[in-house]
Amino acid sequence: MAPRKQQEIFDATLALLARRGYESLTIEGVAELSGVNKTTIYRWWPSKPALLAAALMEADALAFDPPDTGTLRGDLEALVEGVIALLTSPPSSDIAVAALGAAVHHPELNIGAFFADRFAREQEIFERARVRGEPAATADPLMVLDLLAGAVWVRAIFRGLPVEAGFARRAVSAVLDGVGSEGGDAA
Amino acid sequence: MAPRKQQEIFDATLALLARRGYESLTIEGVAELSGVNKTTIYRWWPSKPALLAAALMEADALAFDPPDTGTLRGDLEALVEGVIALLTSPPSSDIAVAALGAAVHHPELNIGAFFADRFAREQEIFERARVRGEPAATADPLMVLDLLAGAVWVRAIFRGLPVEAGFARRAVSAVLDGVGSEGGDAA
Repeated sequence: MAPRKQQEIFDATLALLARRGYESLTIEGVAELSGVNKTTIYRWWPSKPALLAAALMEADALAFDPPDTGTLRGDLEALVEGVIALLTSPPSSDIAVAALGAAVHHPELNIGAFFADRFAREQEIFERARVRGEPAATADPLMVLDLLAGAVWVRAIFRGLPVEAGFARRAVSAVLDGVGSEGGDAA
Repeated sequence: MAPRKQQEIFDATLALLARRGYESLTIEGVAELSGVNKTTIYRWWPSKPALLAAALMEADALAFDPPDTGTLRGDLEALVEGVIALLTSPPSSDIAVAALGAAVHHPELNIGAFFADRFAREQEIFERARVRGEPAATADPLMVLDLLAGAVWVRAIFRGLPVEAGFARRAVSAVLDGVGSEGGDAA
C-alpha cells in the first residue's frame, strides 16, 4: 500500500477513536472516512485492534524522534515537553486519552508494545549521554522515563490540573538533581 | 444510612465496576448484589456517576492513611509501596484500572476530586518533614507525588511490566537524591 494511503487510514482510525471512542470505532467507519475500500483495509489489518495498534505505532500524527540537544538534561526536558504537548493539545490529547481508555479494557490492543517501541528509541538518549561521560547516564533509563512520563500523565490526565510553565524543567531537575539537594526543586 | 450498609453498597459498586466495567454497571445491579433496595440507593446517590464517585472516595476497600514513619524518605517509600499494592493486587488493581478507563470517558465522574482528596491528605507527610527540618521538605509536594505515583502507573499499567522488588526505594531515591549524584539510582 502507498505510504500516503496508509497514513490516511491511520489518520481516519485515530480521528474516529478520539471522536467516538473505541467501542464505536469500526473498520467500516474508517473505510468511509479515509475513502479506502474496507476489503483493502481488512486485507492489511484483519481486525479492529490490529488496525488501531498499527495506527498508534506508525501514524505520522504520533511520530516520535528522540531529541538530541547535546545534554541528557536537555534531551529529557525536550522529551517531557513532547509528552506535555501530546497530552494537552488536541487532537493528540483526545487520541491518547481514548487509546488509554481502550487499552485498559482491551488487552488485545497490547499497548505495552507501543510503550516498548518508544522506550527502545528513547534509550538512545542515555547511550549518547554515556558516550559523553555524563554521570547521570549510569541511571536506570526505564526508571527515569517512568518517573517523568508518569508525572505528566498524573498531572494533566488523572488530576486534570494545568501543567504550568517550567514543569518539564522542574520535573527533570527533580529526577537528575534530587529535590533534597541544594539547587533542587525548591518551592 | 448505617455505615456498614453503606460500605456494602460501595463494595458491590466497586466489585461490579471491576468485573463488568462502567458501561455495564447499574444501580439495579448494585441493589441486587448488596441486597439494598434500589430506591434507597437512589435516595442517597441520585445517579450512577454519583454513586461511583462516592464509592471511590469513601469505600474502606480503597481507604488511605498517610504513612508516618518518622522520615520523609520512609513516608514516600511507604506511599509508593501503597500505590504498587493498589495497582498490582486484585481486586484493587481491577478497580483502579476500570475506574481509570471510566474516568477518561466520563468527565462527570470527576476523578480529579478523588486525586485532590488524596493529595490533601498526602501533604501531611511534607508538613511533618518541615517540622522536623528535613531539607527535602521544601520541595513541591505535588511534583514529588506526580513523579512517584506516575512511575508506578506507567510501569505497572501502561507498560504492563513487573514492578521489581526495590522499586519504591529506587524511585524515592531518584526523586530525593537525584540520579546524577553519587549514591543516586545507579544501574
